Amino acid sequence: MEDYEVRLVKVAVYGASGYVGGELLRILLSHSSVEITAATSKRFSGMPVHKVHPNLRKVCQMSFVEPKVENVANAEVVFTALPHGQSTHVVKTLLDRGLKVIDLGADFRLKDPSAYEKWYGFKHPYPELLEKAVYGLPELHRDEIRTASLIAVPGCMASASILALVPPVKNGLVDRSQIFIDAKIGSSGAGSSPTLEGYHPERYNVVRPYKPAGHRHVAEIVQEVSNAAGGGIVIGFSPHSVNIVRGILVTVHARPSGRLPSFPDLWRCYRQAYDKEPFIRLVRDPTMVHGLPDPKYLMGSNFADIGFEIDADSNRVILFAAIDNLVKGAAGNAVQCFNIIFGFDEKEGLTFPGLHPA
Amino acid sequence: MEDYEVRLVKVAVYGASGYVGGELLRILLSHSSVEITAATSKRFSGMPVHKVHPNLRKVCQMSFVEPKVENVANAEVVFTALPHGQSTHVVKTLLDRGLKVIDLGADFRLKDPSAYEKWYGFKHPYPELLEKAVYGLPELHRDEIRTASLIAVPGCMASASILALVPPVKNGLVDRSQIFIDAKIGSSGAGSSPTLEGYHPERYNVVRPYKPAGHRHVAEIVQEVSNAAGGGIVIGFSPHSVNIVRGILVTVHARPSGRLPSFPDLWRCYRQAYDKEPFIRLVRDPTMVHGLPDPKYLMGSNFADIGFEIDADSNRVILFAAIDNLVKGAAGNAVQCFNIIFGFDEKEGLTFPGLHPA
Amino acid sequence: MEDYEVRLVKVAVYGASGYVGGELLRILLSHSSVEITAATSKRFSGMPVHKVHPNLRKVCQMSFVEPKVENVANAEVVFTALPHGQSTHVVKTLLDRGLKVIDLGADFRLKDPSAYEKWYGFKHPYPELLEKAVYGLPELHRDEIRTASLIAVPGCMASASILALVPPVKNGLVDRSQIFIDAKIGSSGAGSSPTLEGYHPERYNVVRPYKPAGHRHVAEIVQEVSNAAGGGIVIGFSPHSVNIVRGILVTVHARPSGRLPSFPDLWRCYRQAYDKEPFIRLVRDPTMVHGLPDPKYLMGSNFADIGFEIDADSNRVILFAAIDNLVKGAAGNAVQCFNIIFGFDEKEGLTFPGLHPA
Amino acid sequence: MEDYEVRLVKVAVYGASGYVGGELLRILLSHSSVEITAATSKRFSGMPVHKVHPNLRKVCQMSFVEPKVENVANAEVVFTALPHGQSTHVVKTLLDRGLKVIDLGADFRLKDPSAYEKWYGFKHPYPELLEKAVYGLPELHRDEIRTASLIAVPGCMASASILALVPPVKNGLVDRSQIFIDAKIGSSGAGSSPTLEGYHPERYNVVRPYKPAGHRHVAEIVQEVSNAAGGGIVIGFSPHSVNIVRGILVTVHARPSGRLPSFPDLWRCYRQAYDKEPFIRLVRDPTMVHGLPDPKYLMGSNFADIGFEIDADSNRVILFAAIDNLVKGAAGNAVQCFNIIFGFDEKEGLTFPGLHPA
Repeated sequence: MEDYEVRLVKVAVYGASGYVGGELLRILLSHSSVEITAATSKRFSGMPVHKVHPNLRKVCQMSFVEPKVENVANAEVVFTALPHGQSTHVVKTLLDRGLKVIDLGADFRLKDPSAYEKWYGFKHPYPELLEKAVYGLPELHRDEIRTASLIAVPGCMASASILALVPPVKNGLVDRSQIFIDAKIGSSGAGSSPTLEGYHPERYNVVRPYKPAGHRHVAEIVQEVSNAAGGGIVIGFSPHSVNIVRGILVTVHARPSGRLPSFPDLWRCYRQAYDKEPFIRLVRDPTMVHGLPDPKYLMGSNFADIGFEIDADSNRVILFAAIDNLVKGAAGNAVQCFNIIFGFDEKEGLTFPGLHPA
Repeated sequence: MEDYEVRLVKVAVYGASGYVGGELLRILLSHSSVEITAATSKRFSGMPVHKVHPNLRKVCQMSFVEPKVENVANAEVVFTALPHGQSTHVVKTLLDRGLKVIDLGADFRLKDPSAYEKWYGFKHPYPELLEKAVYGLPELHRDEIRTASLIAVPGCMASASILALVPPVKNGLVDRSQIFIDAKIGSSGAGSSPTLEGYHPERYNVVRPYKPAGHRHVAEIVQEVSNAAGGGIVIGFSPHSVNIVRGILVTVHARPSGRLPSFPDLWRCYRQAYDKEPFIRLVRDPTMVHGLPDPKYLMGSNFADIGFEIDADSNRVILFAAIDNLVKGAAGNAVQCFNIIFGFDEKEGLTFPGLHPA
Repeated sequence: MEDYEVRLVKVAVYGASGYVGGELLRILLSHSSVEITAATSKRFSGMPVHKVHPNLRKVCQMSFVEPKVENVANAEVVFTALPHGQSTHVVKTLLDRGLKVIDLGADFRLKDPSAYEKWYGFKHPYPELLEKAVYGLPELHRDEIRTASLIAVPGCMASASILALVPPVKNGLVDRSQIFIDAKIGSSGAGSSPTLEGYHPERYNVVRPYKPAGHRHVAEIVQEVSNAAGGGIVIGFSPHSVNIVRGILVTVHARPSGRLPSFPDLWRCYRQAYDKEPFIRLVRDPTMVHGLPDPKYLMGSNFADIGFEIDADSNRVILFAAIDNLVKGAAGNAVQCFNIIFGFDEKEGLTFPGLHPA
Repeated sequence: MEDYEVRLVKVAVYGASGYVGGELLRILLSHSSVEITAATSKRFSGMPVHKVHPNLRKVCQMSFVEPKVENVANAEVVFTALPHGQSTHVVKTLLDRGLKVIDLGADFRLKDPSAYEKWYGFKHPYPELLEKAVYGLPELHRDEIRTASLIAVPGCMASASILALVPPVKNGLVDRSQIFIDAKIGSSGAGSSPTLEGYHPERYNVVRPYKPAGHRHVAEIVQEVSNAAGGGIVIGFSPHSVNIVRGILVTVHARPSGRLPSFPDLWRCYRQAYDKEPFIRLVRDPTMVHGLPDPKYLMGSNFADIGFEIDADSNRVILFAAIDNLVKGAAGNAVQCFNIIFGFDEKEGLTFPGLHPA
């Protein structure tokens, strides 16, 4: 790492006033080998960053600049955090200029161009970039990430789901056509623009189904699980809004492919997959209050906590994954990819472990 | 109803200092045809009720009395709200004295005595009472309730699950062996005794799996769905603690038994089942924020909101039911049974509709 | 009451889609002597009421109508729940037509026309109506309310503050020039239109000063306390947003006017003032968890809980009042006034006691 | 700093299973110049730390050890985080052995031994240590801290109150006898042992006065403000429990000592006091949602945010301070003192800026 400490990698954040953009800034500001050259915002251009992200007062001296390619062009890497459908041209231009791009939107996650028509309702203008883009989940694609010039950071609920599913599906412990994901997510997952759905009097105390059929993240999940574990994947996916700001828990209800796996079977398969992973923790400890994954303890952290149960009565395996949707589900995962690309310690900038209690 | 308005039915609440007991008192105090003769509490005997249930200050002038049969013997009906395993002898004694009993614990819900050994770990001392007891879900057992002397009020998560499941399973719209229930529940479901799990610093912000395999409510659910819709029922059931005090949402992920049902199929089957039910509301309105069931709007209410979605991509039906766990999931449902037994309007005492917002 | 049960008073709610309007509907629907003839909403005209207020599904069969005087003209009483500054002309027109008006906005609360210029920034077009309007706090103005044709329902934080302050100030227990009110309020107090301040990710978890100097409610408080207890009133008033939806706690820090009052002094003064009040409860019980007022137990209730402490070390009296801002702080209080005007039992429609726990 | 990076200071945490102890571990684990030699816990001795503090899984490999002096004796510094009254003997023993002690309890905060009898109800066994102890608020006592062997870390609400009060009182902007502090605090301030008051169903949604007269923290506040700004200090202090886990806001209502100060007066006085302070931020920006201090944005951070308003109508100055009660209000402040003692950068281990949103 010594070499890199000498020079700072110049990075820019394109779309820095949203919640993911704010987390990118927070993390990158604490990164020992990074210089942030620009943070763009259409709406807040000219305004000090800390006026939008009050946690960065006295930490970040920057002001937002206009979202123009020239404003980020002197960086080596641009993190793009834009609403769906708005990244395509920006990313293309940046790549053409020779920059690396780590995109946190959905525009480059799916490999199949026609999937964009089905799930996102637009014809993708750069299908060739879809081939080039690497799905930025280090636990699955570390080697490709290392040499990628375009990273498509996974959707928050997709990351959690994929991390829980791939090892047991790949190991044949779970029937690939009998997978039901029930996700629970905090309000920050809906972005930073006020809505009636998100208004505190309407959002507090909810346990509210949110697109229980047809949520777009399922497309990524099926793609990546298929990619890792072979075809025939059928996944039912239903998220719910719950009364927290940050955090996701996915609960996977699945049938075994053959006999019901044992606890050692599941431990073994997850350990094998994740033993060397810096950000995966296996959590299953029936003696403790915190004995299964819970996003409560992950706010601000890049950890993904994975756990499981076995239900012999219903011949069912239950898999859990908890993350902070804005960190391992977005900005933290993006910086982890960045660290891989530039050969830094993967944990650089990402050591905050979360809080107990919070 | 006129006849009944003349005389007041004498009722007692045995175990009135817990959360269910408090709700029984609140509801019965507003009931036009009831006189509460006693509210027992071991721990708070001698203390004014409003010191434990502060909402009842100036509403309830009673003090708790010792939990002795003599203290409730002059009532016609006793509501027993005791921890699991503590109701059996009390109920037996009260029945022997000729009183009617509406039991809110689990001790008389299961028909099969051996099920108590499996799920609750004790040998049931009065198997003959299990036969006699009527499972107190008016939507399924109204006629039996009318003449029952012992009502076993359903478990909170069981009520919601059964109400969502029975119509589509009975109508053959759902594969009876492919049913996965993912429940989310507030902290009041754990009772009124402080625990580390329930301590605010540890409980706030959680999305925490709670007995994701082997939760006891599944026994009731299987019993009642089987009873209504025939055998072969296999149900995977996993509850989660979420950051609310009151409320349950159950999300049922299920396979169709044949072709995927249409929306009209599901509407029709639920309407047929529930059209005349005073406390069931069908909620499915994609144009609105509140377009699917959400316990947020049910605090204090006896309504059960039922909704559904169809997911062609994963060949899946998704069913929802939301209730207030302490009302339709316990005390309100108990009073509804009481109203049926005594021929009152089923809604008497139960008209509070919940709050918007809350 | 028998006479009144025969005829129903026709009432209309002008501005029924907001949170106060929704509560008016909820309460009036449960009122035994009321017929609601219209519920207006500019934005939701034509839409069923329950689509906006989901708690009223199956309870309210009405649809919103256009906010036009003709639509409410066949009522005897109109409840107007409009943003500040929008009531003046509507109210004038309704009064001219001979209707009674119970206004829940701020447009008729202040007696001094010039106060509107100072605090609300507009010149009041109908100063003569300010004289005519009765400040709708039954505990202070019951007799005037009885014969009023125009009621100005107090601001939510003003109600709580006035109820806590008047007895001890009037009795000379508190120095009228040394009064500091620190208020805490839930998110529903800001109305039903989404804002960035109120967006769940920004509003959850806050303890946020909200207009700590110059909040408009102070004008009403000073007016009413002066009116009841004489001049020379100086009040510092600072509200804070806290992480609840419904509820207000006001904490008054005050100096004694002479020697520090004793607990019996304070009990006596409040008892004298409020002993016959149906909705005031004195709460001071150091032995209990719920030993001082707390809005937690008041959701949906019209109670105002009043309590106090004495701090000899700092020569200070501390007064507390807790209410549900939408009920005793708005809609419930309005219906209480309505009951007084029409000679109904003051508690009619207002018996819901709140929930424990919630 | 290079010199210090070579050697690691050995530290121990005595009382490491509580919330303050957990935060000490979290912060010290991220400190580049620290080696933690022991973490004691009576109750969890032998158990891995991460079983109690789940955020430290994979971060902390230690297990708790018995709380014995021998177990911490090889450290240079011991952080003691024990309930009130339990530190005195432990601290005495550790000091006698030549260790430095940073105590996070209340046992050494007050200078006057008789104050312990009044406020804490015990006769202090080591009054000579009270003289020796330095009140660990770097903003007031940095120089004394540098050479201290015993630090008494301030109470959480005391830190916030003192930081808000000292500059304006010292500068004569505020009348020293007219100070009213209204504090709001999260549930973690009550410690890690479950209670009925803190049980989620009873604690969620509260706005609950908590010892509104006679709270012990007032003794420290008066001591320290007097110490900094001279005698005659009279402070009324009333905390309230609010529905968050972490965080304190103190709102100070105060009279000016002479004419009402202007905004520039207040800015100047705070800037003068805190301009070089690494952890004080002045927050007053009426154009922004986050325009005044709010603990929401401080979770996990050592910042103290200070703000103010002026209310000409009531001749009042309003001062605000927000902190995370477990960080700047306890563990973070303790480590800041530690950094001062050992000549480290004061920010070492304390750079986490808090989260937006959270």
